[in-house]
Amino acid sequence: MLAFDQGFFAGKWVSVARRFGLDVRVEPWDPRRGVAAGAVEDILRADAKAGAEARIRAVLIVHNETSTGVTTDVRAIGEAMRASGHPALLMVDAVSSLAAMELRHDAWGIDVTVSGSQKGLMLPPGLAFVAAGPRALAARASARLPRAYWDWSDQLDFNARGFFPYTPATNLLFGLAEALEMLREEGLAHVFARHRRFAEATRAAVRAWGLETVAVRPEEASSAVTAVLTPEGHDADALRSVALERFEMSLGTGLGPWKGRVFRIGHLGHFNEPMLMGTLSCIEMALAVAGVPHRRGGVRAAMDHLERTLEA
Amino acid sequence: MLAFDQGFFAGKWVSVARRFGLDVRVEPWDPRRGVAAGAVEDILRADAKAGAEARIRAVLIVHNETSTGVTTDVRAIGEAMRASGHPALLMVDAVSSLAAMELRHDAWGIDVTVSGSQKGLMLPPGLAFVAAGPRALAARASARLPRAYWDWSDQLDFNARGFFPYTPATNLLFGLAEALEMLREEGLAHVFARHRRFAEATRAAVRAWGLETVAVRPEEASSAVTAVLTPEGHDADALRSVALERFEMSLGTGLGPWKGRVFRIGHLGHFNEPMLMGTLSCIEMALAVAGVPHRRGGVRAAMDHLERTLEA
Amino acid sequence: MLAFDQGFFAGKWVSVARRFGLDVRVEPWDPRRGVAAGAVEDILRADAKAGAEARIRAVLIVHNETSTGVTTDVRAIGEAMRASGHPALLMVDAVSSLAAMELRHDAWGIDVTVSGSQKGLMLPPGLAFVAAGPRALAARASARLPRAYWDWSDQLDFNARGFFPYTPATNLLFGLAEALEMLREEGLAHVFARHRRFAEATRAAVRAWGLETVAVRPEEASSAVTAVLTPEGHDADALRSVALERFEMSLGTGLGPWKGRVFRIGHLGHFNEPMLMGTLSCIEMALAVAGVPHRRGGVRAAMDHLERTLEA
Amino acid sequence: MLAFDQGFFAGKWVSVARRFGLDVRVEPWDPRRGVAAGAVEDILRADAKAGAEARIRAVLIVHNETSTGVTTDVRAIGEAMRASGHPALLMVDAVSSLAAMELRHDAWGIDVTVSGSQKGLMLPPGLAFVAAGPRALAARASARLPRAYWDWSDQLDFNARGFFPYTPATNLLFGLAEALEMLREEGLAHVFARHRRFAEATRAAVRAWGLETVAVRPEEASSAVTAVLTPEGHDADALRSVALERFEMSLGTGLGPWKGRVFRIGHLGHFNEPMLMGTLSCIEMALAVAGVPHRRGGVRAAMDHLERTLEA
Repeated sequence: MLAFDQGFFAGKWVSVARRFGLDVRVEPWDPRRGVAAGAVEDILRADAKAGAEARIRAVLIVHNETSTGVTTDVRAIGEAMRASGHPALLMVDAVSSLAAMELRHDAWGIDVTVSGSQKGLMLPPGLAFVAAGPRALAARASARLPRAYWDWSDQLDFNARGFFPYTPATNLLFGLAEALEMLREEGLAHVFARHRRFAEATRAAVRAWGLETVAVRPEEASSAVTAVLTPEGHDADALRSVALERFEMSLGTGLGPWKGRVFRIGHLGHFNEPMLMGTLSCIEMALAVAGVPHRRGGVRAAMDHLERTLEA
Repeated sequence: MLAFDQGFFAGKWVSVARRFGLDVRVEPWDPRRGVAAGAVEDILRADAKAGAEARIRAVLIVHNETSTGVTTDVRAIGEAMRASGHPALLMVDAVSSLAAMELRHDAWGIDVTVSGSQKGLMLPPGLAFVAAGPRALAARASARLPRAYWDWSDQLDFNARGFFPYTPATNLLFGLAEALEMLREEGLAHVFARHRRFAEATRAAVRAWGLETVAVRPEEASSAVTAVLTPEGHDADALRSVALERFEMSLGTGLGPWKGRVFRIGHLGHFNEPMLMGTLSCIEMALAVAGVPHRRGGVRAAMDHLERTLEA
Repeated sequence: MLAFDQGFFAGKWVSVARRFGLDVRVEPWDPRRGVAAGAVEDILRADAKAGAEARIRAVLIVHNETSTGVTTDVRAIGEAMRASGHPALLMVDAVSSLAAMELRHDAWGIDVTVSGSQKGLMLPPGLAFVAAGPRALAARASARLPRAYWDWSDQLDFNARGFFPYTPATNLLFGLAEALEMLREEGLAHVFARHRRFAEATRAAVRAWGLETVAVRPEEASSAVTAVLTPEGHDADALRSVALERFEMSLGTGLGPWKGRVFRIGHLGHFNEPMLMGTLSCIEMALAVAGVPHRRGGVRAAMDHLERTLEA
Repeated sequence: MLAFDQGFFAGKWVSVARRFGLDVRVEPWDPRRGVAAGAVEDILRADAKAGAEARIRAVLIVHNETSTGVTTDVRAIGEAMRASGHPALLMVDAVSSLAAMELRHDAWGIDVTVSGSQKGLMLPPGLAFVAAGPRALAARASARLPRAYWDWSDQLDFNARGFFPYTPATNLLFGLAEALEMLREEGLAHVFARHRRFAEATRAAVRAWGLETVAVRPEEASSAVTAVLTPEGHDADALRSVALERFEMSLGTGLGPWKGRVFRIGHLGHFNEPMLMGTLSCIEMALAVAGVPHRRGGVRAAMDHLERTLEA
């Protein structure tokens, strides 16, 4: 399996794969950048050339790395993989991107997409989703790793008859029907645009504060979550404590190497202007109270962006 | 009955009383000011002198006039009434003040307090509350106005046995138990201080915008709701439409003579810093989008106030 | 106002009317029988003849007297009133009949129908409904009784614009929309038939136990509630205590003169065969445990009825 | 691993184990009987003698086999295993027994107990529970089967700090706190007695109908579910359809070899006399409507049992 050093959650998949005895190649990568399609293509072409049989069976890409707020252009990677002619499967973690950013399982040539209920689908945690294309289903037939609950076969058999092989989390299924109806009513294009606009306003605030996001390229910055670096010597978790204790607001913690250096702002799902501005205002106050060096004016900058980008 | 021109909801009580044929004296009053205890005292003293028997049977005061965000010092009025020696009952509308601002039925000499579930008690609408002191209960015995559902006697009889005379809104009673527990956990003193601080931050924003609140004296400004005047020639309801359509935020409308001239900001009940700042930010944006002349900086001023007034 | 001695709730309306100073003629009536249309017609004809002007302004009929489980043929009464040529209004209490038994406000010539949310509409208590026809609306214009909250004018004015004059119990309105949708899905004819069938099964059980219902004629027996007489010397409330404490089942108490002599079985709203049979089984056990003389076999008789009356 | 032919769910565990490549010995067993402690002891003693090292590493027992309603005396098996001196772990499926029947993880010498939220704990499906004793935790350290999500290590590490390694189904955790409080209020001894009494009443009905339960010994019959055999030539699923379509009651289907031959009556969790009797009444009616040969009187027999076994 080929993976990239995208961040905490990409690392989790590597850990899962290794626990099952898979040989995982983790390509060093700047976690502040999305995975480049060219890098994937180069590695696959080299792998294909190396011998009679390609060794890489799957490429794992996290669409929206929740720990960094950096997204990867999955469409470009799908194209690069097809261009390379390499048979590896494309497996995508869409846990925090589904219903927040565009993702096209079939059109982009994804073989397996995995997601969950508790992010863009606006539900409590408790449901996971897997989409598997024909190549993935074929691979399943010859797969030899031991598996029981995670085996797709039981689900596929029962789903075809309108049932589940195991007792499902029934109440979440009712919630899912309602969530999908809400997304349909708003329209996915509008949902994506709304998230993008809120993310832009958030980054406008961060820039105005004189702080940096982990994502270095705006076009790679997540529509779902923004990870912000605190200045050297200023503990992001102390800031988070101030926000929680003083302003009743829970910010995401830094994960893995970002622990203490990063706080994360979620802006996905059922989210609107009052929630966004309430969030940014409390962060600006928390920065002041926690003594984190910053310029005022982030809230103002976010409002400017929102005012400028109203729909006609 | 003696009432004052406090605003829309005081006027509603006058209307109710007159529909029942009561002779109501509505004293002209500046609705931007709380009712002065001295004014009540003067009128009662004059009434007592006028003849053998005092004519005024009850003084109606709205504690927090929801239409103007102006509060009246009910404690001072209670003292003035006792000082006057006049036997009139003190009847207080505490619909929007209960659990948001201090109110002491017994200690302040209130005879009847009326409130509802849907404001400081954080419940859906559907419950009303009446507290009646011994003088009010005595007056009930000799009262001759026709009444059925609103007759306290049935409630008093049944409540004494732990029952209701009519089918109560049972599910709200469960909610009420939980709401009271939440208030107890936070502590009423803290609840009142929290509301006062949010109201001050709101008024700081209003001043920074260069706008005026209906309340002209800070000590009379409501902790529950702030009514803001839009500049001459600028329709408050047009602003409210912008806030709702552009920023998913519903502001209170101007009531009675304030229609189109005032918008109202609720900041009571289950309310915290993110909600307050989300509200004020969206108002500041709505002012800009609606073309209402104002200075920027209201949000900043509110944040300054919140930062300055953190508990030690 | 003309009323009949139908039972506890008819009596409540009389009490309300008298508290407002109305002159109410309460015609003695066997509460175990529905009000006869002929009796209404005779009284109205006599009233019209008595002098230049008819004295009776309104006839109050409880459609389904909840305290006795006896229904009145409101359609026949409407016809009789029209036949009499008397101008009195027909006012109907449909609190426990609406959505459980057929009732046609316009077609049956009803002038005012009153109901509530907590019976056939399957909602928590908290909403009341009034339907007023053209003659009632005209009477309102000239009515001189004092009223405020209960004045229809405010409701009519605001409802026409899609609003309420006072803060409504909003969450129940959402519930109402869902309840109406449920009734529409099942179909009112089916809803009525379902209730009728459950009431018949209940009476079959009562007969098999050797007990009597308050209602003496099957065609007048309620589809919503069945009131059952306990044998002389056997306290119905003692039986109710056994049912509650031993079998977790709450039966309705006897009201007014029926206190201790009657227990009531509700079978309306969201109710199905398992609920009905669970109810009847626990009553049969409670009868035995409480030592109330009865024959076994009520449950069996109810099952026989249900089996015999399955839809084709 | 040693397992017994207890039924559908025991078979599921065997299937899981085999999918992971474990060598499972499935001992033939009469599924209508609980697993005999002596049988376990004999096999373990033989295994220990067979060579230098015992081959059996774990004994899997389903405490309450949901497909048959047959329970196994886990305490006796724990004692037999200790008596044998064999080091195999005792692993118990308590999915449908937890909080319905007595089970003592530590006192009975169980090494691993597994359960779920959706049975005796009265919650929606979505939580699973694992209790692991010291011997199981030690075995984990040397276990070599690949595992990731199901690895206890992550849970143990995070739980010790009050956290979860993965996003938990948070709303069910709130429900769990409430469910445990309900069980505590009633008292576990009373909960178990309540379930036992309802199961006995159910079996009294089955006997009266002239039908047979799958469980052949009363002391092994489940307190949580009763599986009933339909007579030869009578499809249990046709009966279930009648119950559902005619009486709005969903009975459990026959699983595995019992398909079409068995229907199952659940009587666990938040369950009382009206629910039980509603259930049994509708089954008795469904038997008649579906034309399944039976004697009437099951409902009567269940009532007799309930009346006879009231608490003093």
